[in-house]
Amino acid sequence: MGERVVVALGGNAILQPGQRGTSSEQMANVHKTVSQIVRMIEAGYDVALTHGNGPQVGALLIQNELGSSHVPAMPMDYCGAESQGFIGYMFSQCLSNAMAEHGVSGRNPVCVVTRVEVDPEDIAFKKPTKPVGPFYTEEVARNKMDEKGETWIEDAGRGWRRVVPSPDPKGIVERDVIRHLVKDGFIVVASGGGGIPVIRDKKGNYAGVEAVIDKDLAGEKLAQELDADIFVILTDVPNVAINYNSPHQKWLEKVSVQELEDLKALGHFKAGSMGPKVEAALRFVKNGGQRAIISSLDHALEALSGNAGTQITR
Amino acid sequence: MGERVVVALGGNAILQPGQRGTSSEQMANVHKTVSQIVRMIEAGYDVALTHGNGPQVGALLIQNELGSSHVPAMPMDYCGAESQGFIGYMFSQCLSNAMAEHGVSGRNPVCVVTRVEVDPEDIAFKKPTKPVGPFYTEEVARNKMDEKGETWIEDAGRGWRRVVPSPDPKGIVERDVIRHLVKDGFIVVASGGGGIPVIRDKKGNYAGVEAVIDKDLAGEKLAQELDADIFVILTDVPNVAINYNSPHQKWLEKVSVQELEDLKALGHFKAGSMGPKVEAALRFVKNGGQRAIISSLDHALEALSGNAGTQITR
Repeated sequence: MGERVVVALGGNAILQPGQRGTSSEQMANVHKTVSQIVRMIEAGYDVALTHGNGPQVGALLIQNELGSSHVPAMPMDYCGAESQGFIGYMFSQCLSNAMAEHGVSGRNPVCVVTRVEVDPEDIAFKKPTKPVGPFYTEEVARNKMDEKGETWIEDAGRGWRRVVPSPDPKGIVERDVIRHLVKDGFIVVASGGGGIPVIRDKKGNYAGVEAVIDKDLAGEKLAQELDADIFVILTDVPNVAINYNSPHQKWLEKVSVQELEDLKALGHFKAGSMGPKVEAALRFVKNGGQRAIISSLDHALEALSGNAGTQITR
Repeated sequence: MGERVVVALGGNAILQPGQRGTSSEQMANVHKTVSQIVRMIEAGYDVALTHGNGPQVGALLIQNELGSSHVPAMPMDYCGAESQGFIGYMFSQCLSNAMAEHGVSGRNPVCVVTRVEVDPEDIAFKKPTKPVGPFYTEEVARNKMDEKGETWIEDAGRGWRRVVPSPDPKGIVERDVIRHLVKDGFIVVASGGGGIPVIRDKKGNYAGVEAVIDKDLAGEKLAQELDADIFVILTDVPNVAINYNSPHQKWLEKVSVQELEDLKALGHFKAGSMGPKVEAALRFVKNGGQRAIISSLDHALEALSGNAGTQITR
């Protein structure tokens, strides 16, 4: 086995801006994504994958809402599990096909339905911040708040949107099985969409919660549990930037934990975009990981060999 | 390890007649089901599970249809994958909790997103017979037939319903990983809803198809791939009956393959109900399995020890 790599794939790996989200669009995107992953496997890396599910869960929430006159709407944890099923199916299918095309044998893909444990005392439960689903009118929002106790916020003139807690991942419930599978050479797809969020109640039982775990932070947890050498976060830009989208924008190449933390403290990385990615990368290296990388899919293989992307080391 | 058992769970194990299908109803049913499964594990059996998904996919199809003005509807294979995700989540959650309650340690549940290969030349593709989703008006049915090339049939005055092919399962694509996991002591939930149906195209690539594989026949394939000793099909009656629902009804207890085949040839087991279960049980024993059982959840453990249910042996 070569170096062990956990790759966290962003939304663009599955659904691209402007696309409607048909099954064939999504399967074609995953196929393209997976070709890059198989190139990593060919290059000798031992890869496990995780992925986002924002647009997919958004679509499921719309279907649940519009179907609710006939079929009970499912809570967020169930929708997350549904998205793991169908996104996992697309990855399994495309990985099987791409490995056959590339002549990679003896490695099989597998998608594991994954729960991620969060702390019921996590401060996020007191202050939901993560917007999910589409925009609705104030009337709809007020009804949902009254009837279901949901939290909705008005978003700068675009309408009202539901927000859910985004608690910190504490551990991957399926850690043992995923470790086993990775050790035995399977290409594991796990913790999709940040995992299905569960808490342990007072009796020690797992219970699902309506929340969304950041997929990069959950991916970091996965990378830790797998003793990965490298944690790669793929997004839509080739590098992390400081002064992003300003005349002073500068792509970061090799940075130490300390340098990146200093830049973070200066407010360079926004909460809604690069913030959690930078935090996940920092955590991985601080928790003993060799190297974290933030880059784009197109640069992924080059970034693994150290020649592209933002490389974070101790 | 004790005797290896593959259990195929019917619809009632997840959703009961008359229930609306809320998440809490379904989770409560699965919890009840899983208590019986954990009793098998406590008794020393080595168990893998598969399950149906009819009502769940029915609900997803309604949500897809009603949401289709806003979100592209997903094909059957994607809906099947979604159902594997959320049903697998319920099983993982309930198995974790029930094993902890019963003090069973060292065994972890895992749901594997499972594809099942079918033959593109299967005669079922020429004549779709499996009804899916709700009843619609003739107008809707004719539109779907014209626009999407789907097959719809009129059902004895109840309305029009889509029918899809129900091809025979040829093999479990995820066989290697499932074998691995079972050998290593994990409680595997696999091939949910009969599996996501895929064919191999002329280039050898897997491609999903809009079809539904019978979950008992797919379960038999799973039991074969796992070299199971016993294949158990759980349904809503304690035994297979001849002259079912007539004054001459008789529950079958111990039967040989030959006896059951003779009864089948006499037309005792209907295609829409006991037929595929009897066929799956027969195949398992004819393919070298030690014993197949058809019984109900409540009688499952007794049936395993040979004291309940219909027992099929060579």
